[in-house]
This record gives sequence, C-alpha cells and structure tokens, in this order.
Amino acid sequence: MPELRFDPITRRWVIIATERAKRPSDFGGHSPTAGSEVESTDFHPDCPFCEGNEAKTPPEVLAFRKPGTKPNEPGWWVRVFPDISPLVSTNTPINKRGYGIYDEISGYGYHEIVAETPKHLADLSDLDDGHVYEVLWAYKERMIKIKTTDPNIKQFIIVRNFGVEAGERFVIRHSHSHIIGLPIITKRINDELIGSSIFYRFHERCIFCDIITNELESKERIVLESDHFVVISFYAARVPFELHILPKRHNPFYETSTEEELRDLAKVIRTTLIKLKKVVNPAYNMILHTAPYYSPNPVYPVEEIYHWHIEIMPRLTKAAGFEWGTGFHINPVPPEKAALYLAEA
Amino acid sequence: MPELRFDPITRRWVIIATERAKRPSDFGGHSPTAGSEVESTDFHPDCPFCEGNEAKTPPEVLAFRKPGTKPNEPGWWVRVFPDISPLVSTNTPINKRGYGIYDEISGYGYHEIVAETPKHLADLSDLDDGHVYEVLWAYKERMIKIKTTDPNIKQFIIVRNFGVEAGERFVIRHSHSHIIGLPIITKRINDELIGSSIFYRFHERCIFCDIITNELESKERIVLESDHFVVISFYAARVPFELHILPKRHNPFYETSTEEELRDLAKVIRTTLIKLKKVVNPAYNMILHTAPYYSPNPVYPVEEIYHWHIEIMPRLTKAAGFEWGTGFHINPVPPEKAALYLAEA
Repeated sequence: MPELRFDPITRRWVIIATERAKRPSDFGGHSPTAGSEVESTDFHPDCPFCEGNEAKTPPEVLAFRKPGTKPNEPGWWVRVFPDISPLVSTNTPINKRGYGIYDEISGYGYHEIVAETPKHLADLSDLDDGHVYEVLWAYKERMIKIKTTDPNIKQFIIVRNFGVEAGERFVIRHSHSHIIGLPIITKRINDELIGSSIFYRFHERCIFCDIITNELESKERIVLESDHFVVISFYAARVPFELHILPKRHNPFYETSTEEELRDLAKVIRTTLIKLKKVVNPAYNMILHTAPYYSPNPVYPVEEIYHWHIEIMPRLTKAAGFEWGTGFHINPVPPEKAALYLAEA
Repeated sequence: MPELRFDPITRRWVIIATERAKRPSDFGGHSPTAGSEVESTDFHPDCPFCEGNEAKTPPEVLAFRKPGTKPNEPGWWVRVFPDISPLVSTNTPINKRGYGIYDEISGYGYHEIVAETPKHLADLSDLDDGHVYEVLWAYKERMIKIKTTDPNIKQFIIVRNFGVEAGERFVIRHSHSHIIGLPIITKRINDELIGSSIFYRFHERCIFCDIITNELESKERIVLESDHFVVISFYAARVPFELHILPKRHNPFYETSTEEELRDLAKVIRTTLIKLKKVVNPAYNMILHTAPYYSPNPVYPVEEIYHWHIEIMPRLTKAAGFEWGTGFHINPVPPEKAALYLAEA
C-alpha cells in the first residue's frame, strides 16, 4: 500500500509508493554530457573553466591562487567570476514597482560561477577533501563580501547541477557551482520559513534540530554521520534518493560556519556523492539553503527558526510531469531503503 | 534586462528573461509517443482505452453509452474506470498516524482514468466541442458522486498529461485524463489558499476575480475570451506559454459549473489547445484546480477566497533542473509575447 507522508518543513504531502518500490538497478544513471570522452583529461581547449582559458570568462571576483600569479591568469585552484549570461545582474539599478495588480522588480542581483578546479574534472567527488573545503570557503567568502557591501541582497542560493537531466546547460562538463544573490526571498525558502514557524509556534524549537534528534535516535534514514554533520535520506523525499545534509549545530547562516565545520563538510559531501555514484550514478541538483536577511514572517526571527542545510535531489525518474504540474510528488523508492543502500555502499 | 515578477496567488517570484526572449520556432515541439504512427487510425489492438478493449481495464464506474449497451462492453463515448496501477486506492481503510516527529496517512483515495473517446485519437483537440463537453461533464459527475459518498476525500485534482515530456506514462497515446481524489490538501492548492487569503485580508475580494478584471482591462495577456471564460497568458508564468483558463463567475467549486458553462468551456479548451498546437505544438500538463472541502486557513472560508480554474503548463524547455531544485523559475518567453502569438494563431 502506498503511503502519504507529510514534509513538516515545506508542508507538502508526497506519495511513497512502497509496493511498486524500485531498486537502484532499475535506474539508468545519468547520460554522459558532450565532451565526456575527454573528461579524464586535465584540459579541454574549449572549456571556459579550465586553467589557461581565463580570457573566456568575465574578470574574476575571487580566486585562490599561487603567490605571484596575476588575476585572470593561470595559477589558481578555485576561481569565481560573474556568469557570462547571468540570470540577474547589478548593471541596472534596483527598481521595485507595482504594475496593475502585480509586483515587479528589475532583474537585480549577483550570478557568479565558481570554477571548482583548474583541471577539467567532472565533479566534486573527483577532487580531494582539502580542495572541496576551498570551494566551500569560496562560497562563504563571496556571501560575506556581497552581504556586507550590498544591502539590496536578501537571499543567496548556491546550486550545483550535475548532468544534462539536472539542467546542466554547459556543453562541456567541468566541475562548477552557481552563487546567486537575490533582492527577494524565493518561494522554496519562504515555504521552509512558514513550515518552521508553524512548528516553532507549537514547540518553541527549531524543526531542523528536532529532525536531527529524531533521525539520530531512529537510525532508519541515516546515510552517514560525522562530528558536525548528519546526512539523512529525507522522510518525505520528493524524489528517489533525496538527501539532506544538516549541520548538528543550530545555525541559520551558512556563512558563519567555522573552518573546522567546513573541513568536515567537505569530507561529508565527497563521501555522500561517491556513495550516490556507486549506488545509482545520478544526474543531480545540489542546493545550499541558508537563511535570508529579513523575515517575511516577522513573528519569529529567522535566527530561531531557520537552520542552513544542503539538499541533494537526484534526477533518476525520467519525467516529472505529473509531479511538476500538480506539486504532488510520487516517489517509488522508500527513503528507508535508499538510506540502507547508501549506508552500505 | 530580465524582470523578477511576483505571482500573487502562490507568492512565488519568477525570472522573465526579456532579453534572451525565445520565439516559438526556438522550441522543438513534443516528441511523438511510441505508436504514434497509428494515431490516425481509429483502433489500436493493444490500447486499453480503445472501444472493444474494455476487458483490459478494471470495471467502469461511469460511462456515457448508447441505450441497450452493457457496462464494460462497446457502445460508450466517454468511459471512467479505476487506474490499473493506482497511486491511491480505497482498498485499505484510511489510517492517519504520527510516526516519531512525522505524520503519515495510508495511501487512501481515488485514482480514476477517463477514456475521453472510444476511438484511438491523441488529444482533446481531435474531438468536437460536444464530445469535450461530455468529458467535462464526466469529471463533474464523478466528483459529486465521490464527494457525497466518501467524507474522507478533501480534494480533487484532474490532470491531463500530453506527450512524453509531460510525464505521459502510457506507451500508446489515447486521449484520457486522471481524476484523483485525496484525503489531504496538496501543497499547490494550499499555496493558492495562503496567497488568496493574504490578498483577501487586504482587499476583501477574490484575487482571481481581481486578476480577471485587471487582465480584461489591460488586454496585454488575453489569449481569448468567451461568454463565461477568459484564457490568460499568466503574468508570472513559470514556463513559456503557461496559460490559465478562468471562469468569469466567482465559483470555488468546478463541480457546481452549469451545463451552459461547461459547453462554453469545452469550446474554450479546444480552441486553446488548437492555438497552442499551431504555435509551439507542445507536450503539456493540464491541471484543473478546484477548492478543497475544508479550509486549512480557517480565517476566510474557501468559498470566499478560492476560484476554480485550469492551468496549462507546456513542457517546452528541455531541463527544469535549476528551477526544480530551487523552486526559482526562469522563463525565456515574456507572457505578453506568448499572448500575442496565441491570440493571432
């Protein structure tokens, strides 16, 4: 019998199809992107993210590079620059206005690319833990820089898309992430704030902290646990193998993570991605959720109710038409089974 | 410059990429489904929805059929039966329970298929207006029947998926819809109830009624208007050519539509689908949104704040990874342009 499960954070019901449960071998894994035949090489002449091709991107805004090397030249190991075709930009002034019954804002904001490695490698799991830590540190540094210099920015999203099924728009696959800073709060974060507020109203506790406690006690959906993090196969997973990485310490803002935490996180992310790759090898979206800089629900401060975390959404089911049109998700892999497969991998 | 637009109903910001605006010819149209080479024939031996193949489905729960013909035999023109592999079913008792910090309900509910035509035709637009009216009437009849006999059912969704990109799971294409009755309120409808409540708090009016008035005045996003309906290219469209069909009369419940209204709606739906087909020939999801039978937001009654409508979501952009992972949609076709293309078609 299928089960209807309630996600208490976004207040969404999902169907977990326990009877027609699929096994990892039922999924085909991700399609290789164009150019994947050269993914094992260190350099691709057409790839704008490879060391030596710095001229193919807008000027960098941050790079971790060898002493003595110049900006926008080789010598870096993590490099951040504006997207060449940005979703939002700071080129025009911010302009908020009404439009009949509707509301509009000019497309103001930041859209930056983090080239995660100078070598032409496909994904974070191909790097070592120390290198992944530097990427995580770059996120933090850019978020703090933008936050402290531009009061128009209310929220950050950090997204990594891996594989064509996950919306990867680049023809050549080179490990990278998007940092997006926006003058508004996106629906997804607002949903989480509403859900966590409703929980707080009843319990006066952070719902994410309670989920961590509950999951560590039940152990049913734990994929892995480290000193500072826990990776859970989410109880009300919208898609097969949906994973959430949560810091054990209650902290609304990613950018206030300590060096020790981010070093631990690097290892946790890599291990998680390697496990996923072994079990189902999916295309995936990895999204960092962190608290916005004002509360659209002013009853409870975001500092109390929000808890930054990372969500990994594998794209294993071919068409999400029904789910997408109705917002009503059907997941053919019980999260407890997904946790078992991954914990054992 | 891209624009950020706010959807006041679901309280979602979307990016309308006005600069990189795409034209209809930039989209490839939908992929033909397997068996489409015989779509022009009237009968397909393997199709469970064709007249003569009634034994391939569970017993019918409703059929409009010629006098003297028997249930589950030929002679019908619209036929409704439970899905052979239902998402939810009434085979087990409804069971609501807590599970640690979480909430669960057994997968109780109704999942029925409406075979919209006895002939092996691909889509509603292939039928005539009178026939489409009979399909709309079948929705109404089943909703009233279930609503009045099973108090566990709190919400209906009616979905039509056309094309593989839209999640169509059948190998052979025969025009049909899904009627789903659920013991819970789905996130999407709950979102609309929250948005319309917030609007009502300020204005004491139905937000949908206000949108209709506003759109009919501005004319910028009108695709077509009939006696009882208006089809708009939605201001904050999540995807290119997203269309909303709204009844002019304030009415929360689809199933209280009159015969005159549904006859008009049949014509409106057919004309809209034919226009869409001419301009971009998309795979699409068509979803009927109607008020649930209790209000999760008890301050304002659903009768005041909700307004049934149909949303058509074409699936033209290949990957929705970024949008899907973040809930932050990027639409490369300004809704005003989409309205122009469709109004002229």
